[in-house]
Amino acid sequence: MHAMRHESGLLTDLYELTMAAGYFQTGLRSRGTFELFARHLPEARNFLVVAGIEQALDYLETIRFTREEIGYLRRHPAFRNVSRKFFDYLARFRFSGDVWAMPEGTLAFAGEPLLRVEAPMAEAQLVETYLLAAVHFQTLIASKAARVVLAARGRPVIEFGSRRAHGVEAGVLAARAAWIAGCNGTSNAYAGNAYGIPTFGTQAHSWIMAHASEEEAFAKFLDVFPQASTLLVDTYDTRRAIERIAAMKRKPAGLRLDSGNLAADSLWARRRLKRAGWNDVQIFASGDLDERKIDALLRAGAEVDGFGVGTAMVTSPDAPSIGVVYKLVEVKRDGRAVHVAKFSPEKATHPGPKQVFRFHDRSGQFARDQIALADERPRGGEPLLVPALRKGRRIRPAELLEEARARCRKQLLLLPDRYQRIDKRIEFPVSYSPRLERMFERMRRAALRGGAVK
Amino acid sequence: MHAMRHESGLLTDLYELTMAAGYFQTGLRSRGTFELFARHLPEARNFLVVAGIEQALDYLETIRFTREEIGYLRRHPAFRNVSRKFFDYLARFRFSGDVWAMPEGTLAFAGEPLLRVEAPMAEAQLVETYLLAAVHFQTLIASKAARVVLAARGRPVIEFGSRRAHGVEAGVLAARAAWIAGCNGTSNAYAGNAYGIPTFGTQAHSWIMAHASEEEAFAKFLDVFPQASTLLVDTYDTRRAIERIAAMKRKPAGLRLDSGNLAADSLWARRRLKRAGWNDVQIFASGDLDERKIDALLRAGAEVDGFGVGTAMVTSPDAPSIGVVYKLVEVKRDGRAVHVAKFSPEKATHPGPKQVFRFHDRSGQFARDQIALADERPRGGEPLLVPALRKGRRIRPAELLEEARARCRKQLLLLPDRYQRIDKRIEFPVSYSPRLERMFERMRRAALRGGAVK
Repeated sequence: MHAMRHESGLLTDLYELTMAAGYFQTGLRSRGTFELFARHLPEARNFLVVAGIEQALDYLETIRFTREEIGYLRRHPAFRNVSRKFFDYLARFRFSGDVWAMPEGTLAFAGEPLLRVEAPMAEAQLVETYLLAAVHFQTLIASKAARVVLAARGRPVIEFGSRRAHGVEAGVLAARAAWIAGCNGTSNAYAGNAYGIPTFGTQAHSWIMAHASEEEAFAKFLDVFPQASTLLVDTYDTRRAIERIAAMKRKPAGLRLDSGNLAADSLWARRRLKRAGWNDVQIFASGDLDERKIDALLRAGAEVDGFGVGTAMVTSPDAPSIGVVYKLVEVKRDGRAVHVAKFSPEKATHPGPKQVFRFHDRSGQFARDQIALADERPRGGEPLLVPALRKGRRIRPAELLEEARARCRKQLLLLPDRYQRIDKRIEFPVSYSPRLERMFERMRRAALRGGAVK
Repeated sequence: MHAMRHESGLLTDLYELTMAAGYFQTGLRSRGTFELFARHLPEARNFLVVAGIEQALDYLETIRFTREEIGYLRRHPAFRNVSRKFFDYLARFRFSGDVWAMPEGTLAFAGEPLLRVEAPMAEAQLVETYLLAAVHFQTLIASKAARVVLAARGRPVIEFGSRRAHGVEAGVLAARAAWIAGCNGTSNAYAGNAYGIPTFGTQAHSWIMAHASEEEAFAKFLDVFPQASTLLVDTYDTRRAIERIAAMKRKPAGLRLDSGNLAADSLWARRRLKRAGWNDVQIFASGDLDERKIDALLRAGAEVDGFGVGTAMVTSPDAPSIGVVYKLVEVKRDGRAVHVAKFSPEKATHPGPKQVFRFHDRSGQFARDQIALADERPRGGEPLLVPALRKGRRIRPAELLEEARARCRKQLLLLPDRYQRIDKRIEFPVSYSPRLERMFERMRRAALRGGAVK
């Protein structure tokens, strides 16, 4: 996978390109508004942590078609009847639309637009696939990581999943999303360098196995990393390994338990460390952990100071995808804004450009959200979508990642505890504004009557 | 996500870098052999389809550290005591090892090395994370896609998952893996251009909604794509949409059903198309499909000519990861090859560099595999690992993707039908050679006795 062009206009589904050609060739130059949102939350998620917005905006600012890429489309059988003018259009293609977005780290719920795109139809259509892919994945991982962080009750959580993420790029982006959601760092060195995320590591079983004995392996590591050695103790026999370290009389920074009975071994390890007079040696646990196992460990009184969470954090196995969609809600027709909606069974969408308003209770906690039309101004509601691009350019520079992380932390303090339970589905109250509900019902009835759908 | 350097030596876990520094600084320059394999297959997988090998080899051929990346490590607190010589070593770092691999499209099973790497310890260690990430993800998706293709019983399956894949790169690579496993194409235009995979598309609900009526939307699309229009009929009401198309008397290439009762609607659609005299209009089904739903549809007699499968194909929700690991099996110590193994509870590994031999029955069908030491030559066994890199360079040019796809197709013809069932776990017989088993037992007993682990 070399030199993938992240600005490529081909990073999309073919039908976005054929539809763009269709809009172009039939003269449909009017603007449309699309919204990106999750239809439903997975059963095991009470909230989403928005992430991936900056990557989406980067794409909108830089999307281009190279001559070679246009050549590919010209030769493609689907474009047989498409005029040369469309390919000229692609050669000078720029995204020129206006975009509103929830800033990264925002807590969001089902039905709420995370991104709203208003642009000439062909442009807004073309970028659908990339926007979904960028926002879906990081939001998925940030939402999972937030649960793991909650389960750890203040103990540091390090993202360890690069090797099992869905490809190399996914590993880097998962580290970014996990950091936004409150993880304390990552093992991914590239993400550390690219995004300024703290990076951590211990040692692998191979280090132990490469040496003639465990003692030698531990001693050599302590020689090179006298202040930063977290020693892996489960290669052969956990307790025997800890005895060996104690007998060496060289205090490590930490011990890492990666298999076996973590609760029992951590208690044993703490006692043994205390007996050695080592009260500040950290016990670090890893090995196929997730939020439920961490919760169970802590309930069982495990003596663990920090957690490394890999596969479960970066693949989100209890919800490996979220049903995010990107739906047309308004189109300008004959100079007039026409609200549109879809009424497929179980896939209906609400019409019109929207804003999400958040209401707080008297103590300042989040009380409820209302999804309203963008021109409504419900009193006391804080709008969550903010202008991000105007005429295809960022209105302000990309946020520091630390700001997104702080936003998430702050919002979690304002989200009532019951929604932060990892073991129970409790729905945060989200409603549509009365005006929006009336419009939806009127349109749905018209569609059912089979009248011309406007 | 711009300009990710896929050759970066930082695309790894920090501990690979600290261990590399440790090997370097303590003078451990000897060669080690690592093997990449799946510990177990997920419950819902009877076989793996190997993929991602070419990306892994690309990385080994090109991995480099830039000056900026080395600067990042020098400033990193973990490297405080690491000597300048190690950073000089990184500046001239090249992968110089020998690699054996199963070619892409090979069917493989639990415990079988898909990749074997022999190199100086620091080099072999450093590339662990990238190799796992590259081979794990595409193998995961190819193995899932093969099941979907089996369920479709010869009907074309198009990979439609880019928007829900775990990031933009994952979408491109999923298209590649799905193509190897027998899908007939993808919606991903970038993958189409980069890998020569056929690309297909229909139209989105937004195309329908952007027009004043369904008739107008269909007519305009047929104007631009007279031979290649697959019309989406479920935006408002599926059967009414098909009536509208029939009334227009303009034959489309196909209809796409994306929601509702696909079996009933497809039967209704087929009858209606026949009544219009349109016997060659294809009925294409999509909408959260997977192998089980496709199987159920076809058992119910659905009249579907092809399937679009998205989220389930590219996120593999019934098994969103496979327990692939990269384990040290041999290290040269004092000029002598020493076999090593690990005995952690449930994570034991077999020692020594290995080869996988496949045995056929009299009819040529696959009968069983044997995992043996690399210097064994069991009679009648076909070795599956072939030399891929020598001294860090490819022995032959990268395979054409079509060759991997053909290999997969051919091997599926040789895999007895019972292992191709998508509804039942049936384990293909894989054993260790007697010599390997004896060595493992001897080492395990020595470890349990607590003797110096060699």
